[in-house]
Amino acid sequence: MATLEDLGVSAFINIVGAFAFLILFAVLRIQPINDRVYFPKWYITGGRNSPRVRGRGVGKFVNLNLRTYFTFLNWMPGALRMSESEIIQHAGLDSAVYLRIYILGLKIFVPMTVLALLVLIPVNVSGGTLLNLNKKIMYSDIDKLSISNVNAGSQRFFIHLLMAYLFTLWTCYILYKEYDNVAFMRLHFLASQNRRVDQFTVVVRNVPHVSGHSISESVEQFFHRNHPDHYLGHQAVYNANKFAKLVRQKERLQNWLDYNQLKFERHPEKRPTTKRGFLGLCGERVDAINYYRERISELDEKIAYERQRILKDPKAIMQVAFVTFDSRWGAAVCAQTQQSKNPTKWLTEWAPEPRDVYWENLPIPFVSLSIRRLIISIAVFALVFFYMIPIAFVQSLANLEGLEKVAPFLRPVIEIKVIKSFLQGFLPGLALKVFLYILPTVLMIMSKVEGYLSLSSLERKAAAKYYYFMLVNVFLGSIITGTAFEQLYSFIHQPPTQIPITIGVSIPMKATFFMTYIMVDGWAGIASEILRLKPLVIYHLKNMFIVKTERDREKAMDPGSIDLPENLPSLQLYFLLGLVYAVVTPVLLPFILVFFAFAFLVYRHQIINVYNQEYESAGAFWPHVHGRIIASLLIAQLLLLGLLSTKKAANSTPLLIILPILTIWFHKYCKSRFEPAFRKYPLEEAMEKDILEKASEPNLNLKAYLADAYLHPIFHSFDDDEEEEKIEVRVDKGRSHIPSPTRSEISSESPPHYHCPNKNCIGSSKGRAKLQKKTVKSQCTRLSSPVEHQQPHHAYFRNPE
Amino acid sequence: MATLEDLGVSAFINIVGAFAFLILFAVLRIQPINDRVYFPKWYITGGRNSPRVRGRGVGKFVNLNLRTYFTFLNWMPGALRMSESEIIQHAGLDSAVYLRIYILGLKIFVPMTVLALLVLIPVNVSGGTLLNLNKKIMYSDIDKLSISNVNAGSQRFFIHLLMAYLFTLWTCYILYKEYDNVAFMRLHFLASQNRRVDQFTVVVRNVPHVSGHSISESVEQFFHRNHPDHYLGHQAVYNANKFAKLVRQKERLQNWLDYNQLKFERHPEKRPTTKRGFLGLCGERVDAINYYRERISELDEKIAYERQRILKDPKAIMQVAFVTFDSRWGAAVCAQTQQSKNPTKWLTEWAPEPRDVYWENLPIPFVSLSIRRLIISIAVFALVFFYMIPIAFVQSLANLEGLEKVAPFLRPVIEIKVIKSFLQGFLPGLALKVFLYILPTVLMIMSKVEGYLSLSSLERKAAAKYYYFMLVNVFLGSIITGTAFEQLYSFIHQPPTQIPITIGVSIPMKATFFMTYIMVDGWAGIASEILRLKPLVIYHLKNMFIVKTERDREKAMDPGSIDLPENLPSLQLYFLLGLVYAVVTPVLLPFILVFFAFAFLVYRHQIINVYNQEYESAGAFWPHVHGRIIASLLIAQLLLLGLLSTKKAANSTPLLIILPILTIWFHKYCKSRFEPAFRKYPLEEAMEKDILEKASEPNLNLKAYLADAYLHPIFHSFDDDEEEEKIEVRVDKGRSHIPSPTRSEISSESPPHYHCPNKNCIGSSKGRAKLQKKTVKSQCTRLSSPVEHQQPHHAYFRNPE
Repeated sequence: MATLEDLGVSAFINIVGAFAFLILFAVLRIQPINDRVYFPKWYITGGRNSPRVRGRGVGKFVNLNLRTYFTFLNWMPGALRMSESEIIQHAGLDSAVYLRIYILGLKIFVPMTVLALLVLIPVNVSGGTLLNLNKKIMYSDIDKLSISNVNAGSQRFFIHLLMAYLFTLWTCYILYKEYDNVAFMRLHFLASQNRRVDQFTVVVRNVPHVSGHSISESVEQFFHRNHPDHYLGHQAVYNANKFAKLVRQKERLQNWLDYNQLKFERHPEKRPTTKRGFLGLCGERVDAINYYRERISELDEKIAYERQRILKDPKAIMQVAFVTFDSRWGAAVCAQTQQSKNPTKWLTEWAPEPRDVYWENLPIPFVSLSIRRLIISIAVFALVFFYMIPIAFVQSLANLEGLEKVAPFLRPVIEIKVIKSFLQGFLPGLALKVFLYILPTVLMIMSKVEGYLSLSSLERKAAAKYYYFMLVNVFLGSIITGTAFEQLYSFIHQPPTQIPITIGVSIPMKATFFMTYIMVDGWAGIASEILRLKPLVIYHLKNMFIVKTERDREKAMDPGSIDLPENLPSLQLYFLLGLVYAVVTPVLLPFILVFFAFAFLVYRHQIINVYNQEYESAGAFWPHVHGRIIASLLIAQLLLLGLLSTKKAANSTPLLIILPILTIWFHKYCKSRFEPAFRKYPLEEAMEKDILEKASEPNLNLKAYLADAYLHPIFHSFDDDEEEEKIEVRVDKGRSHIPSPTRSEISSESPPHYHCPNKNCIGSSKGRAKLQKKTVKSQCTRLSSPVEHQQPHHAYFRNPE
Repeated sequence: MATLEDLGVSAFINIVGAFAFLILFAVLRIQPINDRVYFPKWYITGGRNSPRVRGRGVGKFVNLNLRTYFTFLNWMPGALRMSESEIIQHAGLDSAVYLRIYILGLKIFVPMTVLALLVLIPVNVSGGTLLNLNKKIMYSDIDKLSISNVNAGSQRFFIHLLMAYLFTLWTCYILYKEYDNVAFMRLHFLASQNRRVDQFTVVVRNVPHVSGHSISESVEQFFHRNHPDHYLGHQAVYNANKFAKLVRQKERLQNWLDYNQLKFERHPEKRPTTKRGFLGLCGERVDAINYYRERISELDEKIAYERQRILKDPKAIMQVAFVTFDSRWGAAVCAQTQQSKNPTKWLTEWAPEPRDVYWENLPIPFVSLSIRRLIISIAVFALVFFYMIPIAFVQSLANLEGLEKVAPFLRPVIEIKVIKSFLQGFLPGLALKVFLYILPTVLMIMSKVEGYLSLSSLERKAAAKYYYFMLVNVFLGSIITGTAFEQLYSFIHQPPTQIPITIGVSIPMKATFFMTYIMVDGWAGIASEILRLKPLVIYHLKNMFIVKTERDREKAMDPGSIDLPENLPSLQLYFLLGLVYAVVTPVLLPFILVFFAFAFLVYRHQIINVYNQEYESAGAFWPHVHGRIIASLLIAQLLLLGLLSTKKAANSTPLLIILPILTIWFHKYCKSRFEPAFRKYPLEEAMEKDILEKASEPNLNLKAYLADAYLHPIFHSFDDDEEEEKIEVRVDKGRSHIPSPTRSEISSESPPHYHCPNKNCIGSSKGRAKLQKKTVKSQCTRLSSPVEHQQPHHAYFRNPE
């Protein structure tokens, strides 16, 4: 148990650290050369083309205006200046809702802190021995301020109990209001925003194979039959994984080519060379520029062939399709209903945004999915509880003897004494760090294996897994000694009533540890986030070696995005700490308040100036945030119950049992009240929007609008060298209410199966990809028209007479 | 631990008891006078109008044909003669699926019994001490046949382990096949049966109040807007609870009138009299027939007035409506989607069959529902774990001193010694019996309070509650000593790993108890079910005092129905016993086999000849049956794990942990694979059926068909005295493809809000109910036509151009 002075020293160090980061940030961010690192968002939105502060000569790279150095904290009011609706406009609803989590933290904990400090601290301080109530106690021990200071069996515990009730009610009230608010924001956002392709699109998985029919034909037939009035068309999904690999390879080679060309330009006297062999390390030495050009043109041919193959081969079409409807209503209906008699076939769900789709997971069949989830849940359980085992294993390998065996040539170096002792201290820690560093990646891979379709859901699932890890290994692991596995073992061999007691009793003793944790991870950690050290270094490296044109420079920018899989769990941990310690050791609360306020500012700044959102899920993660805070409340209540039961405050325990029951009920109520807004799309809303749109744009050509929306992105990137053609298509779509020329243009991009049930339409045409595209285009346009004209007839048939 | 001989005695007694019941049944059922008690189903289906065996004089009542007495077991083959599809035709799918539970039991346990008896018994018997393997062991102790006989640490446990795996795999395999089968039967049944009103109807709850609009107007507007292509009409729901009470009162008086009139007819010399006061016990003595006639005519007036009030008063219309669609597709879409932005408003779900609707629960609002569920779940928990407390309380009251205090006039009687000792022994037992007797009613009331809309779901929920009660109080209660509350207390103060050990160890010792239980409850209990003692007595009493005409006699029949809330849990208990003891004490299995086979025969007979199904849920209870058997499997696996861990067979426990994980996974898989077939209605199916119907009956007038389907049954019963008019309506509906006359006839029955948004249409008309009906009819018919003609126009508007 540390004294207040120890804590003060720790706080001082961390505050100094945080300030050092902030000053460094303030200096770096006003250098024109770093403008693309610290303000990439403005470049992406088109708000900026070049650094604001412009000079000549050296001034191009270094800021020489001394005045700007003195206003180094002016980003803080700057971060607050933008209103919430502007942020939604600027960075999307996800970002705005993410920031609301910090506001939620402040809303919950500010009144709690005031109340706890005013009521509980005096009660706790005076609780021990009233006679000793002198100034000295205040400075001698943190523990004197906590519930531990109250004598066992004291009537004062009723005040703590009352506080527990008040805090629970307040938290629930704020949670309810916030959920309501976010749900409203989501619906409003979905309603007020412009037409989006995902509003009209449903993804259907597990399309069954029917012999004699292609997947596209089956889809066409099925939806024509079962949604005759609203079905518009569908987009087949191609297995383009190999294709994507080739394209990635080409990009890598292109980078090397650029690097060598730049080198040659700078030193025209010497043509750069490379070796043919593995990683350019061995083999014959050749001219680098020619070599890479050659390899790229080889790859181009392969890519063209692969593209050809994908389009030709019916096996390349996967058992999944994006089905589009002529109205939001039709899509909402299809997404929410069961289609087939066999509930494992024709599974429909809302299509994610095109940029949110995780293409690799689309073709996973149903049985495989359920097996994958079983395996991953076992793996996550093992990871959470046994994570020390592989680390210990790696650590035992990573000792010096092991290293010498693996790499005998290092022996002379290792045997030097200074290096040896450094390594011996350093290697095990490194193993742990490496493991913790790769953990989010591992969790992300696990989520990918589980087979979710969208990046947003992958991130949410990874965040959920990370939360369990933090809960067990950071929260419980810090409170109870021993590895998570030892805890697990002791838990299943203890009566369930004993667990909250065991943990509850240790809780007040760990308050100082968590205060230090908040300062290191929360304060200094957040300050380092704003500095963006890693993107800064990478950007300058790229700038030095690869960048030739402004467009390359744009590519070298790495704005990043809110790292939900890591940030959500750590935020949730702060909520947990706050709720657990609110009654027990209220002096911890101000630390959390500082964290929430500071992190709010930093992330607001980053969202405005740096991050570029990858997708828009319209705040789909809120139910998770809400659920975890409820879980934190429950944990806090159970631990308080355990703690009080050791304090001989037995009268109070029955009163405390009511709290978790009410909390669970509250959660259930909120779930049924608000969660549908995040999972489903109400028909009322859909219809309203449809009617509005029909009134304002009666001649809208939806088919053209939706045509290539869900084409695999790799096919788009392939068209990079046909840029002009593409721009032409885009322009055409802009004036898409003129139907005839647009459709023919569009279908040149869509795969040939699009409206064309005629198999020969692909099989008969030969030649290179470009040629084929032209051929298919004309055929499809011709073939698609009868289908279209059938639709009104079908619709008519279904009308009530 | 009983010996085999004790068990034999018990078996003998129970078998004799069962045979006594069977013989009694055989004698009673062939008496013509009992024909309506033992074959009511045939009267209801119209297969029989009078007893098959007919005589003259005494032969009318008693069977004098001696030959028929010798074939007293011939109902058994008779019960098997009907095929499953005939049963579905005759008694509905619910009954056929219910019978499949017994078949499922046989399928699971027959191979298990064979294998267990052939493999495990020799292993167990030889396990103890191989030297003692002589014939005596076989007859001395049941326990010698069980796993307890195997020495601790023996390698033989691997055979038990292997068996546990085999049994689990076999059970899962059969469960999977059966789920598949039942799901198929359900879909086939739904697809192949005739048109049913519930296929086109959705019930919408929590219709919001909009100022200036009536509920009916809101509904009309909302669904016209959001389902323009398929919305047909809606049926408002009236709060007819007071009305229903009056009608019930009238029925009771009618019974008394009938009784008195019959009495007068038999003894014309003396006109029966009654007293005006409470229960006819006090007050002025009057002529009974005149008195009851007078009261009935008073009530008639009140009923007419109340009916009038309901139709006039807009407050009598509840915030709920039955919305009908012009196709199954439209209804399926509406039932499965979210309608409103506020997920607590406009809640839609499939309408239950009209006879399945539980009218009283229709108007419960959303918030109230979630509070009700919280309260009831707490109450069920309390009931299950604290049920001994009220019984003990009643028992303490029900001692003799208490009785003397409450009723001092009984003192002289009680003080007689014989009576005193009898009462002292009898009263506490009576209290327990009374409590257990009213338990299903209590559970049913609890489910009603929870607010489910259909009788079928109420029965399922009551069954679920009863299952928990049985699990804790019968299964665990028999294994562990002490009340359920004491068990609960000890469980939460034990490590979770200790619980399976505690129970697992006691399991083999309780085998004989459960064998006796199966014989008493399973064998003799089922035999008493076929005897139908209670309906027999009540029928003859009614026959004696009330019945005047054949129609009265029909009313006096009480065919009853499969009592799902009681039968499902007890069936599930047998599955639990079988699975738990399959590995531990396999000699229990034959007892369960006998139960399943015998109960199958009895219930098949009852379903064919007696029960009249109240509703048709198309086997909606199967997911529950499946889930409970899975739960039983899990319990069995955990208990085996606990048992083996005490047997020092520690090597085997890791192998056993895999079983529950696999079982849970299997359950999840089945849930996602089959459960949608029981909860949702696939669009493919709906569309198929719609198209078929449109092709076969192009001129079908659905509106007429659906018109009064969901009118509160009380309004139908009111029309009993207008029987002729009603029959006329029915006939019209039969030829409903001639549209014009039918509609006007139908709307005479439907409440005036039906297609008539004009408020004055009710307000202006005055006079008695009959008069009003006529007025409203003509107005509504006129008003409804423009709405109808608008529909094609709307539909046209929504077509894609």
